[in-house]
Amino acid sequence: MNTIVDYMYQHDAFSQWLGIRRIAEGEGHCTLEMEVRPEMVNGFGIAHGAMTYALADSALAFASNARGRKAVSIETSINHLKPVMAGDIITAVAEETSLGHKLAIYHVRVTRGQDLVALFKGVVYRKEEEWNL
Amino acid sequence: MNTIVDYMYQHDAFSQWLGIRRIAEGEGHCTLEMEVRPEMVNGFGIAHGAMTYALADSALAFASNARGRKAVSIETSINHLKPVMAGDIITAVAEETSLGHKLAIYHVRVTRGQDLVALFKGVVYRKEEEWNL
Amino acid sequence: MNTIVDYMYQHDAFSQWLGIRRIAEGEGHCTLEMEVRPEMVNGFGIAHGAMTYALADSALAFASNARGRKAVSIETSINHLKPVMAGDIITAVAEETSLGHKLAIYHVRVTRGQDLVALFKGVVYRKEEEWNL
Amino acid sequence: MNTIVDYMYQHDAFSQWLGIRRIAEGEGHCTLEMEVRPEMVNGFGIAHGAMTYALADSALAFASNARGRKAVSIETSINHLKPVMAGDIITAVAEETSLGHKLAIYHVRVTRGQDLVALFKGVVYRKEEEWNL
Repeated sequence: MNTIVDYMYQHDAFSQWLGIRRIAEGEGHCTLEMEVRPEMVNGFGIAHGAMTYALADSALAFASNARGRKAVSIETSINHLKPVMAGDIITAVAEETSLGHKLAIYHVRVTRGQDLVALFKGVVYRKEEEWNL
Repeated sequence: MNTIVDYMYQHDAFSQWLGIRRIAEGEGHCTLEMEVRPEMVNGFGIAHGAMTYALADSALAFASNARGRKAVSIETSINHLKPVMAGDIITAVAEETSLGHKLAIYHVRVTRGQDLVALFKGVVYRKEEEWNL
Repeated sequence: MNTIVDYMYQHDAFSQWLGIRRIAEGEGHCTLEMEVRPEMVNGFGIAHGAMTYALADSALAFASNARGRKAVSIETSINHLKPVMAGDIITAVAEETSLGHKLAIYHVRVTRGQDLVALFKGVVYRKEEEWNL
Repeated sequence: MNTIVDYMYQHDAFSQWLGIRRIAEGEGHCTLEMEVRPEMVNGFGIAHGAMTYALADSALAFASNARGRKAVSIETSINHLKPVMAGDIITAVAEETSLGHKLAIYHVRVTRGQDLVALFKGVVYRKEEEWNL
């Protein structure tokens, strides 16, 4: 368990509302899981795009901040590939594609079992300020 | 009031959870507003990135579907420019930048009073299937 | 005429190869024009995607650097909306959507007469270092 | 050698101007290489962003069209990670991340030796029309 991720998660009311489970975490990587609930569904009867986005964005925040310096999102993008339904369990795996002094890039794959349901990319700005817990 | 948006909103459990208010809507455009609540905050004590994303993504869905054909998101991206706090009221204005037969592009500006807090872009695929309500 | 843009353009061999004409320029904005030549065409017989990208990317570089501090691209994206042919004259208009201390965002519209042929977005990192000409 | 890529390349004047060498190609993948020349440099004395973009975009076009149906770019984005100089040899490897009936997604890594210099993502629309050579 990473201390920074632990602190962030404890203070992250929305990730808790999502019901995120932390599967794996460390410097530059993070795996999260959640179950889609009926209150997360949109006007098409499928999970609101913000649900897969939220899971991936939390994985990005945890993976990048776990490196020790505070990291904030500059640009994130997501491709929704398959519809996700209430009751589905989805998993986000964030990996570091590039780590520079000021900038880092992460790709997050969101899957449901063997299905790839969304692809997410995030660029973060790495502040000089360190987490001090 | 647009019939399609009305139907979508009535069935959109997550937009209702967000507490979205529909300010304006029509073919190719939509303005939504919401108040950030304490349960929407992340580990930095600011609104989770998925909250501004969700508001903008709902505005995209309403604006594009209001044209009559079912439209689904292909790629969306967001730049978070300023932190948003619990208690803030944020507004998303979705405008159509390009309308083709199969594809359309929307830009959404998310503001808090005079401050631009996020910029969102969405590309949608327009199905042949029409909303039939 | 902006001194920084003038210097950049004089040293920009590729923008010269493109045959870029500088229509307007200043702090945070830039308008460029070029004619598509037969050697710029791809395997579909239309302008290679890199041609509209190049025009827009040069407009981004000029608009952002004209502010005085050296600015480098973090992420750029482009949507190609309509095919461009050899002989077409295309115009790129770069506008500043957001200006922060470290980051700035520009949107560039590429048109051919009344037609919008491409939409480009660029995020730049603004270095502390100033242009000193 | 793939017949479609061969045809596209033979008719792609700009890829030829770039001096692209085809290293590997097939359904859904493509590897290209080129040497950066002095006329490809920008006002910072480094390769114009459009050069790495062009190499990656050609790799995207070849990889996606090699599947047999005509594929056109919907949205492409690139992160420039390290400066590239005249004289450098750069390689683009395009891989298919997602293949649907109408849409497909490709990620392209551009490297110089061991260095990752750019990351590119492309979403294409797959027409019904097949290449018929």
